[in-house]
Amino acid sequence: MDIETVKPEEIEKKSFETITTELQGINVVINKSTPVNDGAPELDVIKRCIHTTADFEYAHSMIFSDGAYETFAKLVRGGATIVTDTNMALAGISKRELARYGCDAVCFMADEDVALEAKKRQLTRAHVSMERAMSIKGPVIFVIGNAPTALITLCENHTGGVYSPAFVVGVPVGFVNVEAAKEMLAQSSIGHITNIGRKGGSNVAAAIVNAMLYRMRQ
Amino acid sequence: MDIETVKPEEIEKKSFETITTELQGINVVINKSTPVNDGAPELDVIKRCIHTTADFEYAHSMIFSDGAYETFAKLVRGGATIVTDTNMALAGISKRELARYGCDAVCFMADEDVALEAKKRQLTRAHVSMERAMSIKGPVIFVIGNAPTALITLCENHTGGVYSPAFVVGVPVGFVNVEAAKEMLAQSSIGHITNIGRKGGSNVAAAIVNAMLYRMRQ
Repeated sequence: MDIETVKPEEIEKKSFETITTELQGINVVINKSTPVNDGAPELDVIKRCIHTTADFEYAHSMIFSDGAYETFAKLVRGGATIVTDTNMALAGISKRELARYGCDAVCFMADEDVALEAKKRQLTRAHVSMERAMSIKGPVIFVIGNAPTALITLCENHTGGVYSPAFVVGVPVGFVNVEAAKEMLAQSSIGHITNIGRKGGSNVAAAIVNAMLYRMRQ
Repeated sequence: MDIETVKPEEIEKKSFETITTELQGINVVINKSTPVNDGAPELDVIKRCIHTTADFEYAHSMIFSDGAYETFAKLVRGGATIVTDTNMALAGISKRELARYGCDAVCFMADEDVALEAKKRQLTRAHVSMERAMSIKGPVIFVIGNAPTALITLCENHTGGVYSPAFVVGVPVGFVNVEAAKEMLAQSSIGHITNIGRKGGSNVAAAIVNAMLYRMRQ
């Protein structure tokens, strides 16, 4: 297999051209059956998930609440805090884009006192991390790519009237309670982006956020 | 869909049980056609890739050089440096495990002078990052989850007799030169773990490293 000569600044463009071409043969839908229009923000998100994973399953597994992108963009423009459930997701989100709006991004998962408290209370670190995040002043956008327990904690607090996340990108990956946690989020009244199935991950969570951040400056 | 009650410390165990069960119906092979024995280190790696992605394609797409795990383990025990091509992969690798052996893990991708030099020379930042890494004293394990140009740079320097990486985990994801770069690595005499196809990513790269680090203390 030969190496193609592609200028550094054209690699991403060429990748998205390939994705766009291959999507032409695929029925791109969100929310199980809604077709996505060219130019829609949802399509930007789907394409960047595929760019990050090379997995075309995202062409028909994504779930968006009504006006998800607009809600997210308004929150970011208002300087909302972004909280992730992994340092990988935190590392993947474009700090340069967030800096345009004075947004902070943080993750409490590796904090020693979070680990101690989680052990003591027999909860996951993700659960305790989310509780920490709930005490942040101002609106918080939660970005969950790993821990279904983070998602469940947020949904339960919302249902119980204790705390309302401003927005949740919830795409944990895995085999224990992942699908159920995403279903909880999809059925909630929280503004959200999630997906159907076991797939997801910190990389996918960061890709969703970045897709919207890049669109915001178009 | 109901939420199952699973203790925090049992989530990972239960996930791996599910993966093991589902793999029973699948022909698990490496290097295109070699069956993998129960208990083999390659199976640990495959299972952790599936754990990280929920994608069972890794059951038959992974490529390992002979004795890849043993080579990696020996290098880590000797205190080799780990260099990644993204801060996400760096964030995903278990620092606690590396600390047992006094290993450092670094990433040059976000360094300002790397960006400047890359622009000037019309190369990718990944290419320049790899050159930086080649000047590290002692053996270097490269962990590439994103940039095929990083992999190509390493393979070309190896072929040209300029520099030999001690080991390469090379699982970039994407659409431009990804498959060709992995083929170069697979056909080289560098100790390696890679996969066939477009899939991969920083999360997969970190998962491969962690699978081997966890095995090392069993």
